[in-house]
Amino acid sequence: MNHKEHISKKFDADLEDVRTRVLQMGGLVEEQIERAVEALTEGNEHMIEQVIDNDHRVNAMEVKIDELCCQIIARRQPAAGDLRMIMTVINTITDLERMGDEAAKIARMAKLIYSADRMYVPRFVEIKHIANIAINMLHKALDAFARLDPNASAEIVRQDEQVDEEFRSIIRQLITFMMEDPRKISTAIEILFAAKAIERIGDHAKNMSEYVVYMVKGKDVRHVTADELEHEIRK
Amino acid sequence: MNHKEHISKKFDADLEDVRTRVLQMGGLVEEQIERAVEALTEGNEHMIEQVIDNDHRVNAMEVKIDELCCQIIARRQPAAGDLRMIMTVINTITDLERMGDEAAKIARMAKLIYSADRMYVPRFVEIKHIANIAINMLHKALDAFARLDPNASAEIVRQDEQVDEEFRSIIRQLITFMMEDPRKISTAIEILFAAKAIERIGDHAKNMSEYVVYMVKGKDVRHVTADELEHEIRK
Repeated sequence: MNHKEHISKKFDADLEDVRTRVLQMGGLVEEQIERAVEALTEGNEHMIEQVIDNDHRVNAMEVKIDELCCQIIARRQPAAGDLRMIMTVINTITDLERMGDEAAKIARMAKLIYSADRMYVPRFVEIKHIANIAINMLHKALDAFARLDPNASAEIVRQDEQVDEEFRSIIRQLITFMMEDPRKISTAIEILFAAKAIERIGDHAKNMSEYVVYMVKGKDVRHVTADELEHEIRK
Repeated sequence: MNHKEHISKKFDADLEDVRTRVLQMGGLVEEQIERAVEALTEGNEHMIEQVIDNDHRVNAMEVKIDELCCQIIARRQPAAGDLRMIMTVINTITDLERMGDEAAKIARMAKLIYSADRMYVPRFVEIKHIANIAINMLHKALDAFARLDPNASAEIVRQDEQVDEEFRSIIRQLITFMMEDPRKISTAIEILFAAKAIERIGDHAKNMSEYVVYMVKGKDVRHVTADELEHEIRK
């Protein structure tokens, strides 16, 4: 193996290490969201604390991966495709870290709801439903990142529209609910914030899938419609 | 001027161009937020539409700056300090773009409130107050970026704590308000979302100021307390 080959192998190994870490971080964030939603809907106090405690692990992973990306750029001076991969990683982990924050928010809302011995608000079927879509979007976005597959993004963008619609529907239901029984307004507002956090998770998953299109196609599709996006992927 | 000097001058000019664009983008976002808040609190329908229409300009600036940063990395292979500057720019414009989104959200909430001829909800004094703090944070963060000054960040982090406290206070007031008159719940929820958008703007300004510390000090301070941050700056 000559010197050039050696450098190139080391570079590939560095990139592979970073990609693996992104997927590990993604797995942890997925778990955090699943647990936060379960904690909220089942009222599991131990799980609530676990999610809140684990948020710092997500943050630490972001800081570490960011550092590795900077090292790769400085030492290996990557060109076009590899540079796009690193840019994609840098953007992806920002979204993952913020999804982690949203999971912690959901857990904190669950804590407020259960610690105050509040009256039960029966909106959890809808919350579970919207959360399942958002978690599925994240799962698909991580998969797309792992397989460098831009095809998932159009579907994820459409799922995001569905999440937004479900979110508006939950708000309407919560408003009706509050009007019928004003004593439950505080709890309803906490559920509203949890729903808002889930809606944001959908937005972040959508961002992630758009970075994959950028990585593979070299085209920035962050501010285009789902139809334009499909057109771009088929090119 | 020899070849090396020429390259170096070109590099400095490229970096300077990117920095100028970030400040222009920041100026536009600041204007968008100011107008959105004014539109909300004064009920100016023309201004509401202007803010919503202008959001695509913010997005376009983000895409353009991102592209320039990638070109600089690929062509000029920047080392330590310059690379940190470019990383700071890439992170900063993500936050600026999302602040732009929040400004558009505030405008859309204003549109809902005024188009439906809803009953007046007197929470606008507090909304203006919290918005002024958030706008001031953004202004300081842009200033810190322009002057490469890490010293503002500790104060901005403290202002963010103030914004969070004011936000919780607005929520408590809105809850009391909704309980007293359940017919105003819909409008109160829209104001709540506008307040939430302002609270998020504060978070993004805080992120921006932390990137400046990273740029100047080479230390990632995103997940530390205000006290630890002050210690880091004084080092």
